[in-house]
Amino acid sequence: MFGICCNRESDVVHMTYQALYALQHRGQESCGIAVNNDGVIKHYSDVGLVPDVFNARVLGELGTGDMAVGHTRSAVKGELSRQDSQPLYLRHVKGPMALCHNGSIVNARALREAMELKGTVFHTSTDSEVIAYAITHARLRTPSIEAAVVEAMGQLEGAYSLVIMSPRKLIAARDPSGFRPLCIGQLSDGSFIFASESCALDTLGARYLRDVEPGEVVIASPGDGLRSITTHCGTQKLGLCAFEFVYIARPDSVVDGASVHIARQNAGRFLAQDSPVEADVVIGAPDSGLDAALGFSKESGIPYGVGFIKNRYIGRTFIQPDQNQREASVRLKLNALAATVSGKRVVLIDDSIVRGTTISVVVDLLRQAGATEVHVRVAAPPFRYPCYFGVDVDSRESLIANSYTTEEINNIIGADSLAYLSIEAVKKIAPTRSRAFCVGCFTGQYPVPTPQVLPKSRFETGISAQQKEE
Amino acid sequence: MFGICCNRESDVVHMTYQALYALQHRGQESCGIAVNNDGVIKHYSDVGLVPDVFNARVLGELGTGDMAVGHTRSAVKGELSRQDSQPLYLRHVKGPMALCHNGSIVNARALREAMELKGTVFHTSTDSEVIAYAITHARLRTPSIEAAVVEAMGQLEGAYSLVIMSPRKLIAARDPSGFRPLCIGQLSDGSFIFASESCALDTLGARYLRDVEPGEVVIASPGDGLRSITTHCGTQKLGLCAFEFVYIARPDSVVDGASVHIARQNAGRFLAQDSPVEADVVIGAPDSGLDAALGFSKESGIPYGVGFIKNRYIGRTFIQPDQNQREASVRLKLNALAATVSGKRVVLIDDSIVRGTTISVVVDLLRQAGATEVHVRVAAPPFRYPCYFGVDVDSRESLIANSYTTEEINNIIGADSLAYLSIEAVKKIAPTRSRAFCVGCFTGQYPVPTPQVLPKSRFETGISAQQKEE
Amino acid sequence: MFGICCNRESDVVHMTYQALYALQHRGQESCGIAVNNDGVIKHYSDVGLVPDVFNARVLGELGTGDMAVGHTRSAVKGELSRQDSQPLYLRHVKGPMALCHNGSIVNARALREAMELKGTVFHTSTDSEVIAYAITHARLRTPSIEAAVVEAMGQLEGAYSLVIMSPRKLIAARDPSGFRPLCIGQLSDGSFIFASESCALDTLGARYLRDVEPGEVVIASPGDGLRSITTHCGTQKLGLCAFEFVYIARPDSVVDGASVHIARQNAGRFLAQDSPVEADVVIGAPDSGLDAALGFSKESGIPYGVGFIKNRYIGRTFIQPDQNQREASVRLKLNALAATVSGKRVVLIDDSIVRGTTISVVVDLLRQAGATEVHVRVAAPPFRYPCYFGVDVDSRESLIANSYTTEEINNIIGADSLAYLSIEAVKKIAPTRSRAFCVGCFTGQYPVPTPQVLPKSRFETGISAQQKEE
Amino acid sequence: MFGICCNRESDVVHMTYQALYALQHRGQESCGIAVNNDGVIKHYSDVGLVPDVFNARVLGELGTGDMAVGHTRSAVKGELSRQDSQPLYLRHVKGPMALCHNGSIVNARALREAMELKGTVFHTSTDSEVIAYAITHARLRTPSIEAAVVEAMGQLEGAYSLVIMSPRKLIAARDPSGFRPLCIGQLSDGSFIFASESCALDTLGARYLRDVEPGEVVIASPGDGLRSITTHCGTQKLGLCAFEFVYIARPDSVVDGASVHIARQNAGRFLAQDSPVEADVVIGAPDSGLDAALGFSKESGIPYGVGFIKNRYIGRTFIQPDQNQREASVRLKLNALAATVSGKRVVLIDDSIVRGTTISVVVDLLRQAGATEVHVRVAAPPFRYPCYFGVDVDSRESLIANSYTTEEINNIIGADSLAYLSIEAVKKIAPTRSRAFCVGCFTGQYPVPTPQVLPKSRFETGISAQQKEE
Repeated sequence: MFGICCNRESDVVHMTYQALYALQHRGQESCGIAVNNDGVIKHYSDVGLVPDVFNARVLGELGTGDMAVGHTRSAVKGELSRQDSQPLYLRHVKGPMALCHNGSIVNARALREAMELKGTVFHTSTDSEVIAYAITHARLRTPSIEAAVVEAMGQLEGAYSLVIMSPRKLIAARDPSGFRPLCIGQLSDGSFIFASESCALDTLGARYLRDVEPGEVVIASPGDGLRSITTHCGTQKLGLCAFEFVYIARPDSVVDGASVHIARQNAGRFLAQDSPVEADVVIGAPDSGLDAALGFSKESGIPYGVGFIKNRYIGRTFIQPDQNQREASVRLKLNALAATVSGKRVVLIDDSIVRGTTISVVVDLLRQAGATEVHVRVAAPPFRYPCYFGVDVDSRESLIANSYTTEEINNIIGADSLAYLSIEAVKKIAPTRSRAFCVGCFTGQYPVPTPQVLPKSRFETGISAQQKEE
Repeated sequence: MFGICCNRESDVVHMTYQALYALQHRGQESCGIAVNNDGVIKHYSDVGLVPDVFNARVLGELGTGDMAVGHTRSAVKGELSRQDSQPLYLRHVKGPMALCHNGSIVNARALREAMELKGTVFHTSTDSEVIAYAITHARLRTPSIEAAVVEAMGQLEGAYSLVIMSPRKLIAARDPSGFRPLCIGQLSDGSFIFASESCALDTLGARYLRDVEPGEVVIASPGDGLRSITTHCGTQKLGLCAFEFVYIARPDSVVDGASVHIARQNAGRFLAQDSPVEADVVIGAPDSGLDAALGFSKESGIPYGVGFIKNRYIGRTFIQPDQNQREASVRLKLNALAATVSGKRVVLIDDSIVRGTTISVVVDLLRQAGATEVHVRVAAPPFRYPCYFGVDVDSRESLIANSYTTEEINNIIGADSLAYLSIEAVKKIAPTRSRAFCVGCFTGQYPVPTPQVLPKSRFETGISAQQKEE
Repeated sequence: MFGICCNRESDVVHMTYQALYALQHRGQESCGIAVNNDGVIKHYSDVGLVPDVFNARVLGELGTGDMAVGHTRSAVKGELSRQDSQPLYLRHVKGPMALCHNGSIVNARALREAMELKGTVFHTSTDSEVIAYAITHARLRTPSIEAAVVEAMGQLEGAYSLVIMSPRKLIAARDPSGFRPLCIGQLSDGSFIFASESCALDTLGARYLRDVEPGEVVIASPGDGLRSITTHCGTQKLGLCAFEFVYIARPDSVVDGASVHIARQNAGRFLAQDSPVEADVVIGAPDSGLDAALGFSKESGIPYGVGFIKNRYIGRTFIQPDQNQREASVRLKLNALAATVSGKRVVLIDDSIVRGTTISVVVDLLRQAGATEVHVRVAAPPFRYPCYFGVDVDSRESLIANSYTTEEINNIIGADSLAYLSIEAVKKIAPTRSRAFCVGCFTGQYPVPTPQVLPKSRFETGISAQQKEE
Repeated sequence: MFGICCNRESDVVHMTYQALYALQHRGQESCGIAVNNDGVIKHYSDVGLVPDVFNARVLGELGTGDMAVGHTRSAVKGELSRQDSQPLYLRHVKGPMALCHNGSIVNARALREAMELKGTVFHTSTDSEVIAYAITHARLRTPSIEAAVVEAMGQLEGAYSLVIMSPRKLIAARDPSGFRPLCIGQLSDGSFIFASESCALDTLGARYLRDVEPGEVVIASPGDGLRSITTHCGTQKLGLCAFEFVYIARPDSVVDGASVHIARQNAGRFLAQDSPVEADVVIGAPDSGLDAALGFSKESGIPYGVGFIKNRYIGRTFIQPDQNQREASVRLKLNALAATVSGKRVVLIDDSIVRGTTISVVVDLLRQAGATEVHVRVAAPPFRYPCYFGVDVDSRESLIANSYTTEEINNIIGADSLAYLSIEAVKKIAPTRSRAFCVGCFTGQYPVPTPQVLPKSRFETGISAQQKEE
């Protein structure tokens, strides 16, 4: 999720396009850009990765402008869902609006039904359209778009970071618990940027200013400075998603003031402290286990090694062979480095175990390459509870951690030992950040009330933990 | 525009796909299909021709069902307009709806503004969304979707043929003047079909039953017969668009009971009666002038000949040469048959002259092929007035007939003589049809009141007369 | 097959591209262009239609030049045959060469084996490569490329029209029997053109000069006039392929001095004379039966009518429904015009019957549209014998005319009567052309000796009669 | 380059396809596969990466077989070079042949001219076609294909590793100096494999047997064991390309018995010994500098860190912004990790400096991320001399090391210090390998005589060092 507000007409479309490349890891299902040229908004979005959706022709047709917003979306199974891609673009007598949303609204279904009974018609099944209509309806009663956002926030419960573009303003907002990240940056020419992660700022050479506060509404306008509305700040228990540090965010991002790379190294350090093992080399499962492996190595003194070479040409168009699909597929992507592991006792760090199928093959590859022992250390606690705030973890049944004990899993994956990061440790991985995390997916305890039944709409704008196994 | 209602789950998607091929000439800008499988509606639409938008994967994902609707849209310039493609799909607590519309609503802007001030948000700039919301709003006050359609028709002014699919019903409706065609057919298994033109029925081997009456609402439901609501019938002056017979409809269609092919032959006959000429051969400009040329030949006794061979491989991907573009482009598509015209006095029948550039090249090609005289006869009167009812003729300024007399045009295009069909004659070309035509684009006299200023929204769902020159 | 020789660097690539569009009907399997810029030859060819193979990027990379050749190839089943596409490009110390070939070499296999035993290596399975190597080998013993062509022609038996481009010359040659057409044209700037059919000249606005004579070698060179070598002229019995007039060539082409359109009208006239019938209307099967239908109408006095409307949007990407494929497929492409045939006795003219499946459906469509009688007249004699000279007619077994009598076929296709053009008549359809035809596929009598066994290589560069049924 | 020989019909095409993914880094310009099904060879090759060229349809058409060969080619600039892609497929009376070649023939031009003067015609401009014809010509005089290969090797001078497939045999050969690698592996079912690098064996789960010896010809045949012909072994000075260890090969490959990963770590170790520096962290330029950075860290005791995050979504379809292209492009792909380098003295290891533009930006990114010092260490000596044996390094002029001293380069790239690996050190990086390297590109001293003038054909099948900077 990204927005830029310049003081003059410029190539905001291409800057947004570059930023979406930097944010692609947050959503691979669909993406889009909306550009504002002196109040006239053009938009384009579709199912696919950024390079699938955007080409020179489409970028050219979007043209230039003084503001732009962009979005990458990670969604549930289901094809033909182009209408759910974002930015959502709406026309209204009070002015058009392009809206980007990351998160999940807990009371979306109730809000939607109430609106429909008053004549509102929905085009999509997303929470984002509920948010957009809540804002538009509030707009009829309020003097400004930002006032409408503030009023709408009074009705919305759950997780939402928003970037909204009106004809003359770019607005960022974050739910009062601050579940999802959202930061503010500035280009050397003074242009303001809102982005889900600071790595998008780095891509554009922008300076990180600060994070949007939980509950805050920040307004940028071409030629103006930033303004802030804090009506909703401090109204709910804080709860930045711990999973952002563990899995979602890019290691080079700084989230709410803490480095993701260092947080992951810390996870590795804590693992080494809590679950030590005698070994000759520490390796990470590429790419997500590498940071924690380095931390484990530093803490334990066991040398760090390169355990796998990843084939960087394998992509979505690779045609799978018919048989032994899982093993062949992993083997194609990863080759164990015998030079590193042969004759060695190996500590393998991964960042999660979802269904356990990939890690089984990885352990086997290490043994085939000559590892004498393979000790698996997971740089996160097991997921055992649903997320209602925008992360699409599998239902409890399909998670291996819900069906088996750690010892059983160790046997299933064929390792010599297995240990997870403790819940206490995960709370401490980003110490430069004083605020509490939401660790509901590990503990079942959430910072705000959640529905009894898992709401269907929670799947809508989340980030899929499953992508990792594929 | 097409809809099918079966008594059982079947391959309604593929039947709709075939029908859209038969109706492709009515709109080349975008197209779409929505399918209803036991109340669950899937839809897909995009910018492009039917073969561009649909492939085996998309058809497969749409799957099977008991009802389906499809649309081909002809729209204005402007890229990235995918959101304006139809069927329009809406979700609502009273049930989802897929809507197809052909025509133009005269009071769309006023209706839209009134709705927006009550909180309605629009996603598109189309009249179709105004119609859809009018129906949805009425639905909150009415006991059935068909009652909502009838109530909404009380607010809509202008031209509209509609095919609407709700979870359990397929509904066809036509504005009280009957500007745009809409007919009813039936498959041998009893399934009912609604289609803009009867040629779509033929493609599927369906039997033509009758046309939807001006002002009528017809309801089909799986397992039921047809029901009709005639509340709005007879409430306005009739006015089927004469241009349907002259240019838009396929010659093998029967529109409001009259054969388009015979109407065009009649146009040729009247031309021969009113503007005779001594000549050796009558030829038609392919493909649209061929029927009238045959009529002219029969009436005049001058032999009919094949004057041009059309290159059937030239398509949208042809790369134009840089210079002499217009002539080279026409020459690539059409080759004059010297064997037919060399040393002959030729009557050339075309169905319209828009800017006059193509016909100039065509006349020149005939002379280069050895024609000693070229007499042009146009099988329609000159367009001189705007259409407010869904045909996107150029603004008055760019039409050659608005700037020059017939004699001047004759000189510009380099013909030996030029004559148009008279307005009196065009009214008689479909004699098996007793009702009055709308001939407003020829006379400036319209069957219902029109706005002073040409409304911008008239461009939205019309059929472009300009395509012909391209 | 096309070649152009200009006096200065110009856009010969785009002219060749346009010409290939005009010649696309002669081969739809693959195509290619080679361009010569001051002795440096670039080439590009691939499997597919002209719009599939060429786009702006490829045309741009080929660039400009003073000479170019192009080819469209019609080949046998079998994918992945890109290496067989033409122009064939060869490098040699005596200079590179791009070669285009239309026809079939009767002694190709023997020549090939003899060459291979001397160390020659083949990259393709085509006759064209045999011709190219025969010329290159002769080149080592001769002072010029044209002398090499003349010497090589002494070894080649069978059908070949050739267009060859060397660094400084463009050479056209035709086998001594003149089986395949090849004509010469000139642009207004003096540039010379060689083309398989004169319609390619018309496309470029070029003037038809004359045909290459059977056995003649014609040399063009930038800045020079044409030169002719007639060594092989008059050395074999003449035999232009009659099938060119009946089916292959475009109606607007003039082949060896005779109009194809008039030849087909004459075929219709002779049918009317030899196989008259009482009827109300004469129609043609689109598009190939239309010319003969007009001739039948003129000769018989029975009015000509438009019997079918063809859907011009159905293309290769159309996705077939699963069931009733043949009928549904024909019905999608052709709609019978009830306005023309209902209640009428109809004469239907087609240009050939191959397997009889399509014509059966067509006859049925006419009856469903109300025709009271359907009399089929075929504007060619039945094919009963193999072609050794480049036309890929089905093996004798699959041709319906080889298994059934005319009366039996009449029953199979469900017509009221059926008659073919007589062999005597087909010989007279192009009376302005005094030379003898090859009518071997109708009679089994060929102008030159043929192999006992049908050579496999005959399939290689031929034109498929089967395409018509598809 | 890859070949597989099975004892029974199996999915050799898909195995080759997987292997080409593992070998993609050796050539990104074009690729291809030829499959042998009981003596019948099908082949397909085109310009592009493996996923561009192969899809399910093409793989399906190639089908199954008992042998297959595949190739990835890295070639010079110039589009439309599809005919130069490999495997090269030839037909001949002694049997067809598919040939894969890696290397460069020093006397290719002379051999080619001699062949042409005897009537041989070339289709491509590659050395590979010269090799293929030399073998085919020898085949007419020899009793077997392997004897022909041995005889042809007597004429060929330079670098060549070959994999050749005839109807019944799969043959591997390596030039007497052993410039390019080629190894032998075996599947658990006994099938034999030849591959340029052992990582392709790992991908298929095959066991590494040994390398093909310099000068050796190895023959595999379905149902037979391996046979070896050593006629040419020991006839020339040995000289495996050192650049294979430094840059070309994948780190997980074992080349001539030595691990590439360890060789690169050794390069880092020698750098730390020869050019030590006081610093706080050692980082590698991704991905090629990572191994050496780890070696430098181990040797020096300076901690290893993750200095950059690479954006794995940026691909060939990324649309460059107009201005500041170089910096923006690098910034998009690489983000410096402030958490690692901020406030630190950094050692940056890269594996080469070609033009110096990328490294300048990389150094700058580190400083912007807070590095207080940046010391660059290059894990190879500077390239100063042309390669005649298949590596396409830039001409001497464009290499920064040819125009400037190390100190000047240090200033240009803005580093605090710069050092290269010494030539003495590079000779020792793979100590488990006792044979001499060719280090001609560093020293100008080559193991075999080279032409005075850089032969044009050297560009033909080489691997481009330039790809790295792009």
